[in-house]
Amino acid sequence: MSAMDTLRINGARLLQRLKALGQFGALEGGGTNRLALGDADRAGRDWTVAQMQALGMRVQVDAIGNVVATYAGTEDLPPVMTGSHIDTVRTGGLYDGNYGVMAGLEVVATLCDAGLRTRRPLQVAFFTNEEGARFQPDMMGSLVMVGGMPLEEALAVRAVDNGATVGAELQRIGYAGGAPVGAPQVDSFVELHIEQGPVLEQQGVEIGVVEGVQGICWMEFTFDGTSNHAGTTPMALRHDAGMCAMRTAACVAELVARYGGRQLGTVGALQLKPNLINVIAAQAVMTVDLRNTDGAKLLQAQAEVLAFARQIAAENGVRFAHRQLADFAPVAFDAALVRSVEQHAGALGLSTLRMPSGAGHDAQMLARVCPTAMVFVPSAAGLSHNVREHTDAVQLEQGANVLLQVLLERANRM
Amino acid sequence: MSAMDTLRINGARLLQRLKALGQFGALEGGGTNRLALGDADRAGRDWTVAQMQALGMRVQVDAIGNVVATYAGTEDLPPVMTGSHIDTVRTGGLYDGNYGVMAGLEVVATLCDAGLRTRRPLQVAFFTNEEGARFQPDMMGSLVMVGGMPLEEALAVRAVDNGATVGAELQRIGYAGGAPVGAPQVDSFVELHIEQGPVLEQQGVEIGVVEGVQGICWMEFTFDGTSNHAGTTPMALRHDAGMCAMRTAACVAELVARYGGRQLGTVGALQLKPNLINVIAAQAVMTVDLRNTDGAKLLQAQAEVLAFARQIAAENGVRFAHRQLADFAPVAFDAALVRSVEQHAGALGLSTLRMPSGAGHDAQMLARVCPTAMVFVPSAAGLSHNVREHTDAVQLEQGANVLLQVLLERANRM
Repeated sequence: MSAMDTLRINGARLLQRLKALGQFGALEGGGTNRLALGDADRAGRDWTVAQMQALGMRVQVDAIGNVVATYAGTEDLPPVMTGSHIDTVRTGGLYDGNYGVMAGLEVVATLCDAGLRTRRPLQVAFFTNEEGARFQPDMMGSLVMVGGMPLEEALAVRAVDNGATVGAELQRIGYAGGAPVGAPQVDSFVELHIEQGPVLEQQGVEIGVVEGVQGICWMEFTFDGTSNHAGTTPMALRHDAGMCAMRTAACVAELVARYGGRQLGTVGALQLKPNLINVIAAQAVMTVDLRNTDGAKLLQAQAEVLAFARQIAAENGVRFAHRQLADFAPVAFDAALVRSVEQHAGALGLSTLRMPSGAGHDAQMLARVCPTAMVFVPSAAGLSHNVREHTDAVQLEQGANVLLQVLLERANRM
Repeated sequence: MSAMDTLRINGARLLQRLKALGQFGALEGGGTNRLALGDADRAGRDWTVAQMQALGMRVQVDAIGNVVATYAGTEDLPPVMTGSHIDTVRTGGLYDGNYGVMAGLEVVATLCDAGLRTRRPLQVAFFTNEEGARFQPDMMGSLVMVGGMPLEEALAVRAVDNGATVGAELQRIGYAGGAPVGAPQVDSFVELHIEQGPVLEQQGVEIGVVEGVQGICWMEFTFDGTSNHAGTTPMALRHDAGMCAMRTAACVAELVARYGGRQLGTVGALQLKPNLINVIAAQAVMTVDLRNTDGAKLLQAQAEVLAFARQIAAENGVRFAHRQLADFAPVAFDAALVRSVEQHAGALGLSTLRMPSGAGHDAQMLARVCPTAMVFVPSAAGLSHNVREHTDAVQLEQGANVLLQVLLERANRM
């Protein structure tokens, strides 16, 4: 396989495809609006499918609209898959998801150029509605593909914009395919993605070796107290819903500092009522976003924050309600495949950092059914879901070369 | 003066006047909307002036629209004044302000019934725009009366609803009077008011002996950080404006608990941007309301909170801006007059509690120019600026009898 070890992708061609795809749903001034299953998504899909076919790949569409293109191997074995998504948020960039799909095509194009085939088939996929911006939940296509959500349920989900169902939109845009979902036969899955965070840039590292996806706990707390005059109500007679919420936020900050490690905590939303300078808040609704790669610690953090909120509400004679909005255990990627990413990056002379993924990705769904790993490249200023999302061309090329080598090793192994 | 010692006001008549006044600007289902210098305020003023004239009082209107009615004394000495305001907030009750004015008239009516006059004249006043709901600042009429704000400046203030000036509205409703403002010749001032807080009811006390008005410090803090993904941004790389604000709120709570005594602290308003569960807040704008009867402690509290906010912003790489929205030193009422309130309440068999006023009142302006005191009666559930504002008829009567006796002693003294 030494011929393959020296293969390198064509960075210019990769960038060209990324820019071409970015034209579908392009926003004035840069960025892309290609919400799942809308007209721009259809146009982007059609163009991508044409690219796949031009590379001699066999294209299959499954019942949830996932598109999987196969570059045949020399043997009829379970395929090694790569891919990501091409839908974007309303004000998205050119790279989130799209990069992984276009890099997969570039890997195949590189093999085509060299007239080579791997032992196992290579597959490049793009999954339906990864973003969740138009249909809930996000990562819908990969979730349904691995059997994590019944197909009928997914097809019945309605768009937040016009109420159309996933099923009707798939029919409308011509992507209600015939391939079955629920039990994919895949040897392994490797997803290349931009980091969407600032760590690689900050540390001057070229390749993120993703060990897994951190667990997520989303909670909404509602404190119901009593609105009263800030000047005439002694502290002891208050039922200050706002102060309960803000002290719970401070508890989150304190807990995160105490836990250290990979514990993250964010209170991004808080609404006080009536929200006036001299009126004690009658109601406070806040969110708590906790994340950790360590599932046990995440559960412990959740329990601590919840206990604090309950206690401070009780101490202040304030009613407390808790809604769990999301609850995902951490996902650990395949140790051998993670090592393979690290080794190939090193062999290419690239610096690496082992890290968790802070965001959710299709790879975490595929990890339920096969050995899986991810490769990250830096995001300028950590920006993503933003028209200013950017990764340098050389970094895009580096990541695609790592992907190439990892896929080759995996697909050619005996 | 023993004949006067046994005088008592007519509680039914007092209540009748309060209800009659409450008809002007009455809201469906209870309560009153009588914003300063609007049509309902004019109607209420006209009716009140007619009541004053019917009691044989000489009515004067000054240049800021304050109305002062004089019940002549047996000697031509500086008058003893009582009064309050009859404007209300948009959803006000029947008692805030109105009670003090109607009780003043009831005191005069009681003297009329008995055919008695005091040595010094008695004056009953209602001041323009105490609430500040339509024109800023609040307590405008009494502030201008005592020379605390230039008349021209006050007349030029525009209404928040229709932009009309105070001067134009006074002309329109016929209350641009000719009496001068700036240096009133008053022997002393006593204001009877509902507590607007829960303390008297909670402690089962009938009369609040008001020792002064607490100082007020209003601050607005703006934290400007960086919006980032809650999942992909490590804690050490965050510039979380929201967390800075909420930890400052927690600092306020901690400080108030540590100071104890009469220290109050409220964070009633907080606005996060973009206010989303999984996005670190780029901006947080919060208010801090600090109050204390001890001016030195209030300044110390202000300095501590400000220092904390600045420091936490610096630690988090977040820009910090501070606007001082209000800054009033505490007002101490006249010790002898405060004692007089306490003694007369006791002589009437009523329980008393010395307390500060939590809210601002016209009395704090008059205190700049003459010995001043206030009498409080309980507010049911501490509610005020609310259509459900309520004080029992018997409590209204008790307060008015205290006012009567304090005014008589003060007006008759040699």
